[in-house]
Amino acid sequence: MEKFNASIAYDRHLWEVDVQGSKAYSRGLEKAGLLTKAEMDQILHGLDKVAEEWAQGTFKLSPNDEDIHTANERRLKELIGETAGKLHTGRSRNDQVVTDLRLWMRQTCSTLSGLLWELIRTMVDRAEAERDVLFPGYTHLQRAQPIRWSHWILSHAVALTRDSERLLEVRKRINVLPLGSGAIAGNPLSVDRELLRAELNFGAITLNSMDATSERDFVAEFLFWASLCMTHLSRMAEDLILYCTKEFSFVQLSDAYSTGSSLMPQKKNPDSLELIRSKAGRVFGRCAGLLMTLKGLPSTYNKDLQEDKEAVFEVSDTMSAVLQVATGVISTLQIHRENMGQALSPDMLATDLAYYLVRKGMPFRQAHEASGKAVFMAETKGVALNELSLQELQTISPLFSGDVSCVWDYGHSVEQYGALGGTARSSVDWQIRQVRALLQTQQA
Amino acid sequence: MEKFNASIAYDRHLWEVDVQGSKAYSRGLEKAGLLTKAEMDQILHGLDKVAEEWAQGTFKLSPNDEDIHTANERRLKELIGETAGKLHTGRSRNDQVVTDLRLWMRQTCSTLSGLLWELIRTMVDRAEAERDVLFPGYTHLQRAQPIRWSHWILSHAVALTRDSERLLEVRKRINVLPLGSGAIAGNPLSVDRELLRAELNFGAITLNSMDATSERDFVAEFLFWASLCMTHLSRMAEDLILYCTKEFSFVQLSDAYSTGSSLMPQKKNPDSLELIRSKAGRVFGRCAGLLMTLKGLPSTYNKDLQEDKEAVFEVSDTMSAVLQVATGVISTLQIHRENMGQALSPDMLATDLAYYLVRKGMPFRQAHEASGKAVFMAETKGVALNELSLQELQTISPLFSGDVSCVWDYGHSVEQYGALGGTARSSVDWQIRQVRALLQTQQA
Amino acid sequence: MEKFNASIAYDRHLWEVDVQGSKAYSRGLEKAGLLTKAEMDQILHGLDKVAEEWAQGTFKLSPNDEDIHTANERRLKELIGETAGKLHTGRSRNDQVVTDLRLWMRQTCSTLSGLLWELIRTMVDRAEAERDVLFPGYTHLQRAQPIRWSHWILSHAVALTRDSERLLEVRKRINVLPLGSGAIAGNPLSVDRELLRAELNFGAITLNSMDATSERDFVAEFLFWASLCMTHLSRMAEDLILYCTKEFSFVQLSDAYSTGSSLMPQKKNPDSLELIRSKAGRVFGRCAGLLMTLKGLPSTYNKDLQEDKEAVFEVSDTMSAVLQVATGVISTLQIHRENMGQALSPDMLATDLAYYLVRKGMPFRQAHEASGKAVFMAETKGVALNELSLQELQTISPLFSGDVSCVWDYGHSVEQYGALGGTARSSVDWQIRQVRALLQTQQA
Amino acid sequence: MEKFNASIAYDRHLWEVDVQGSKAYSRGLEKAGLLTKAEMDQILHGLDKVAEEWAQGTFKLSPNDEDIHTANERRLKELIGETAGKLHTGRSRNDQVVTDLRLWMRQTCSTLSGLLWELIRTMVDRAEAERDVLFPGYTHLQRAQPIRWSHWILSHAVALTRDSERLLEVRKRINVLPLGSGAIAGNPLSVDRELLRAELNFGAITLNSMDATSERDFVAEFLFWASLCMTHLSRMAEDLILYCTKEFSFVQLSDAYSTGSSLMPQKKNPDSLELIRSKAGRVFGRCAGLLMTLKGLPSTYNKDLQEDKEAVFEVSDTMSAVLQVATGVISTLQIHRENMGQALSPDMLATDLAYYLVRKGMPFRQAHEASGKAVFMAETKGVALNELSLQELQTISPLFSGDVSCVWDYGHSVEQYGALGGTARSSVDWQIRQVRALLQTQQA
Repeated sequence: MEKFNASIAYDRHLWEVDVQGSKAYSRGLEKAGLLTKAEMDQILHGLDKVAEEWAQGTFKLSPNDEDIHTANERRLKELIGETAGKLHTGRSRNDQVVTDLRLWMRQTCSTLSGLLWELIRTMVDRAEAERDVLFPGYTHLQRAQPIRWSHWILSHAVALTRDSERLLEVRKRINVLPLGSGAIAGNPLSVDRELLRAELNFGAITLNSMDATSERDFVAEFLFWASLCMTHLSRMAEDLILYCTKEFSFVQLSDAYSTGSSLMPQKKNPDSLELIRSKAGRVFGRCAGLLMTLKGLPSTYNKDLQEDKEAVFEVSDTMSAVLQVATGVISTLQIHRENMGQALSPDMLATDLAYYLVRKGMPFRQAHEASGKAVFMAETKGVALNELSLQELQTISPLFSGDVSCVWDYGHSVEQYGALGGTARSSVDWQIRQVRALLQTQQA
Repeated sequence: MEKFNASIAYDRHLWEVDVQGSKAYSRGLEKAGLLTKAEMDQILHGLDKVAEEWAQGTFKLSPNDEDIHTANERRLKELIGETAGKLHTGRSRNDQVVTDLRLWMRQTCSTLSGLLWELIRTMVDRAEAERDVLFPGYTHLQRAQPIRWSHWILSHAVALTRDSERLLEVRKRINVLPLGSGAIAGNPLSVDRELLRAELNFGAITLNSMDATSERDFVAEFLFWASLCMTHLSRMAEDLILYCTKEFSFVQLSDAYSTGSSLMPQKKNPDSLELIRSKAGRVFGRCAGLLMTLKGLPSTYNKDLQEDKEAVFEVSDTMSAVLQVATGVISTLQIHRENMGQALSPDMLATDLAYYLVRKGMPFRQAHEASGKAVFMAETKGVALNELSLQELQTISPLFSGDVSCVWDYGHSVEQYGALGGTARSSVDWQIRQVRALLQTQQA
Repeated sequence: MEKFNASIAYDRHLWEVDVQGSKAYSRGLEKAGLLTKAEMDQILHGLDKVAEEWAQGTFKLSPNDEDIHTANERRLKELIGETAGKLHTGRSRNDQVVTDLRLWMRQTCSTLSGLLWELIRTMVDRAEAERDVLFPGYTHLQRAQPIRWSHWILSHAVALTRDSERLLEVRKRINVLPLGSGAIAGNPLSVDRELLRAELNFGAITLNSMDATSERDFVAEFLFWASLCMTHLSRMAEDLILYCTKEFSFVQLSDAYSTGSSLMPQKKNPDSLELIRSKAGRVFGRCAGLLMTLKGLPSTYNKDLQEDKEAVFEVSDTMSAVLQVATGVISTLQIHRENMGQALSPDMLATDLAYYLVRKGMPFRQAHEASGKAVFMAETKGVALNELSLQELQTISPLFSGDVSCVWDYGHSVEQYGALGGTARSSVDWQIRQVRALLQTQQA
Repeated sequence: MEKFNASIAYDRHLWEVDVQGSKAYSRGLEKAGLLTKAEMDQILHGLDKVAEEWAQGTFKLSPNDEDIHTANERRLKELIGETAGKLHTGRSRNDQVVTDLRLWMRQTCSTLSGLLWELIRTMVDRAEAERDVLFPGYTHLQRAQPIRWSHWILSHAVALTRDSERLLEVRKRINVLPLGSGAIAGNPLSVDRELLRAELNFGAITLNSMDATSERDFVAEFLFWASLCMTHLSRMAEDLILYCTKEFSFVQLSDAYSTGSSLMPQKKNPDSLELIRSKAGRVFGRCAGLLMTLKGLPSTYNKDLQEDKEAVFEVSDTMSAVLQVATGVISTLQIHRENMGQALSPDMLATDLAYYLVRKGMPFRQAHEASGKAVFMAETKGVALNELSLQELQTISPLFSGDVSCVWDYGHSVEQYGALGGTARSSVDWQIRQVRALLQTQQA
């Protein structure tokens, strides 16, 4: 049962923030007159010593240390004696643990933001450099229209900018101080929570002590943030896994990001991408698990909430690894321009053929139908769409004339999509500028 | 298969926004020179007629109408003839459907925000009115410390203000226009997306056409918003279900929100609260379902995305009902002040007894231990904690003196918790002001 | 609130089983001496009339009918008068509703089993007919080894036989009678539950009245059964969506199971398969939702359990549609044998090349390495693996001799895999026999 | 990336079963003529040495050991030289890893079955011993009818017998041998899979090599089994947490299963039960995560499947701990019979009052209404239901006579519920016999 109850196996990750929180709290106690200046200094000095031991790997856990908070306080007492017993005055493990977790997650959010920005930047740089490569755009995995390769890269980069925006919002809600909430009723010793907030550099203080000690919205939000970000990365991974197949052959992973087979010597497997795709499940599982744990819980602190930390630690580690691997994959990926080009086929210009007629005045629905007839005619005759003669096209509509030949140029096709957000070069450049500007704003 | 494929059974909810989007798009086409002024007017007029038919319940679906978009366009053509065929120029169902959904959800967010504010307001009003009622605060469902009933109400109201804040953020990301993204490559006819944005009153335009037509972040975010909000309401419901039991008897539901039994004549069941609690599962299930559907999907539009709408419609309906029922429950709830008071017991003041010693200079850890001894002594003697004589207390610590009697006053106890966020009257008043101010900011 | 509470909108699906359950119960009451024979006959006759009205669509709901049980009893009373009031003697809605649901689900399981068998049979028939078609087997979506197309079909059929087995187990646990459990304490009127069981053809009776009225394991199991079955179908759909791409071009959906594009005239989208894939999310969402609703619920009946029915109805409908569409897809699918054959490439025989050396006595690890060298040599020289000359191969190992040419025959390759479960013809035939035998056993 | 890819950190748990599988496989190779007897003996001996090193903690991992399979084979080669290279002949990591996992899980299922039986036995013993204790049965958490305390215990024990039954079914599907499936196409060296099956004591062999190497149904089933079992335990925990409250005071946890507060000296928190309740979320999260990972995966082995093992290991550990803690809680729980008795109140006999009238010939619906009137009359008069005089009752119905006084005896009340599954002593005894018989069958 003791093993079942104890959290020290994983909450030791919090050693640094636990010391940080305790130092701030001792300053609050001093200001409230509950510690003398000398006692406070003694405690601060002792806590520094505790931190030093952790940093140097010399901190020794005792069998009775059920969590990091009792471990640190126990050690403090060994180091400075009875004064250590004053540190917890008016504080409860309920407000202490959630303060520690918020401090830890605030830092993690900053780290993950940095890794996410690095990934987006890598993608945008690549999009800029390879702006002139065309390849098929797919919907329903069927070849749809020619697009720029950069347009594909940016489609995923743009999705990640939303993750970045959301992470900042989550961080904002993490960055709220619960310390001074006690176990449930608040702090009875007039501790100055604004002072604690300033000491620990939080953006605001929590409003209600019962809520503060038992709400885990910020954990749930963080886990959901990670889940949604992972669905983006899983979709990008899925595309790249397809593009790596022999059948598509658009891209090739660098050796560092692929592995061989224990049985088949010719194999080169996109393990890195498959792992990214799979982690979407794991991360979401943690989110689902926490929400279920929270459902129907009586208000205020219940031990059930202890489930929060392992989820946060695991998901943080996973996100950190995934973002770095994704950055590595993208930056070392080799593209096969020739294959990309050869995969474009005239039938992908059927929509453009319809637009040709639209520009000549035909209502779109009729033009769509006429173009469909041309597709059918070409299929029936066993030729490519652009191999239909003008005469043949004119049996479908008299609006076809010699200038229809322009339709068959892929470069010309993509340049039509000049409206903002489209695949024309000007729009791709605009997208790059927009994403760069967003990054700059978010990093500010 | 047709039945399997068709979405008209549920996406007809979008009739109004579909017409709205088409009207804006026809204005965009006119500005781009793809419609004459006369054609545009004809289309606008026809669309108004379509809307009128829906509003009056006279719109007749035909068996071939697989979705609301084809239904409306089919009807438009019947009303105004071939010109209708120009409306879809450069537009795809891919950008059309997501525009419609965003328009619909934008409106829904506003409605739900209003209902949420109404609930919070109801709670704050009640908290203000019943500020002087004390009752037991629980942690781990064990009696912990005396608190104000208002403090409990506010603990849930404060949680809901975060939901309100999050809903505004979700709405901000919903309020981005994808129209003009075509099927995948963008719009080839130089349609002015800024004009479309202004026409439809969106806050911004999407950056990348591939992303715009296939990302459903805003749906996932909305479903998660609802899930987290429901965990809050499930926890409040759980508390109230407990408080409604014979054993607690703190509150009583009005008859409108409870029901009888088909077998047991004496029963009065808190069905309303149980349903609220249960809906947390249903709503989260929709969120889980969508995320699983999105996982690993190739980029751009795939038919899988059709799953988004039923989830949104169901969850919107559920949230609307739940918020209104919760408001009804709270506003009609009767409290049993006497029972609340009688449930307070002197052992809940053990922490205060420790603080008494702290104030006399004893380090908290020792004081906590001394108070624990007093609790044990009282238990052993079979008396209440406050029935220990001064002499008895002094065997535990000489710091006890006559003024210890003040500790046993519940009103005095709660007033100690004056630090911000605590249960003292001043702090409860501060909380009420804070929540009211938040509401005002969010409604602005 | 009444709308929030009422379930009649969906539980009307239960009209038939509700009548069925009530008829059996009235027989139980008669045997227990609580109804005379005449009263029982009156009730039975009245219930038949109620059923007839439902069947003919003439049953009229009244505004006070909150659920199907009260509706049917209300109508019975209108038809036969006060005797109707005896029907509910000793019964509670708690045992009534769960009896009805089990009856309904028992029937649904049989229907779904039938549809699943039909799908498996269709697959096995196809596997048998197309046994001689070879195509690439993939792992990690990279070409791995040549396999029979039938081997691929059977890999999915075999997965579905497990679903079939599980569905029978779920049905077994559904097929247990709770009637006679009352609201919580049991039935006080000595009703003979064995008689009720026999009347309703259940396999067993529930053991404990508190558990019987509030456990929803059988619902959770059913929803999970559907979720796991859907992951199988989602994986098969994913494969087929890939095989439908221009790049793979192994199969082609019939027109009935694919749809066109509102914008791109050349498109033929595998909507049926995408919908199957997407439903895996929806179905699992319902399972997740129910489990969350159940988590931490106090024992016995709580209104939260009302969430069970909509989940069951929706998932049953979805499974029924998905299984039928999948059967249609498989039975009408066209395969492109030529493309399948052309997709086989000599590098897929690298493992066989290693086995060649193994058969000549080389330890596998060395042989794997030697084969890897051959792959590398071929790549370096820019030739296919089978174009390396014997001399070149012999620079890698002297064990290579003239008979190595046999390795390059795909037909010869697959025939090596004759161990049970492999892709040799004999093993494929064995699989077909095994699956057919399983079907026969399960249908028995 | 290497760290991201490697699984050795957790799959080292499989060391023993990996050796076991390899030993069986080497016997298969010998029988197929691919190893001489001497080579086989050398390999078997080497593998025993490897196992010994693991068992004694002397096995040294090398930095290149990415998983347990390569580690063991690397070590084998160091120990016995090149012959080790023959072990992997015709085997792939794909069939190796899934064989290992099945061996491991088969053992785990047996262990967990044993722990589950121990828990059920503990509950049944307790139910038998405390058969004469009555207390309130609740529905909707409202006092409903008097029941036996044993009836409550059995309601949870009966639920757990279904978990036990399901675990045996899951084990049956785990106990199927995939070895001999190779990477995808099967085993090309005529290895005798029936021999392998017998060597490893599996119940059957897998039917299709593609399915065998990539299906993880047995993992999903196991995770769902655990999830459903945990919902049962979460519900039992919820009940007990309530019964531990001051307000209910029906039971008291032993000190070993409760903990104190860092702030409130009087607190005794049911941490053990809260942790049990919370784990339902964690375990289900793993199930949800795996299903999402599986959704839409292309068939055969993909690296995504590597996610299976950590989920299995974590959930196995959790279930083992939870079942043992639950057994400890139940076996050491103290009950407060007096409080249980005092919580019974006459209004809980209102249903019995109705039955009284039914027995006198009144139709139940009228009797229910009459009893409701009595409840209302008592409430209005401010007396207990059993304090209404006969005259007063007779104003409601002339059927009331002197013998109504028998209704007010709680012992008499429960004894009415003698139909199977009810709370009468005979039925409780029957339940105990049934559960004991089930246990015996399942253990056989």
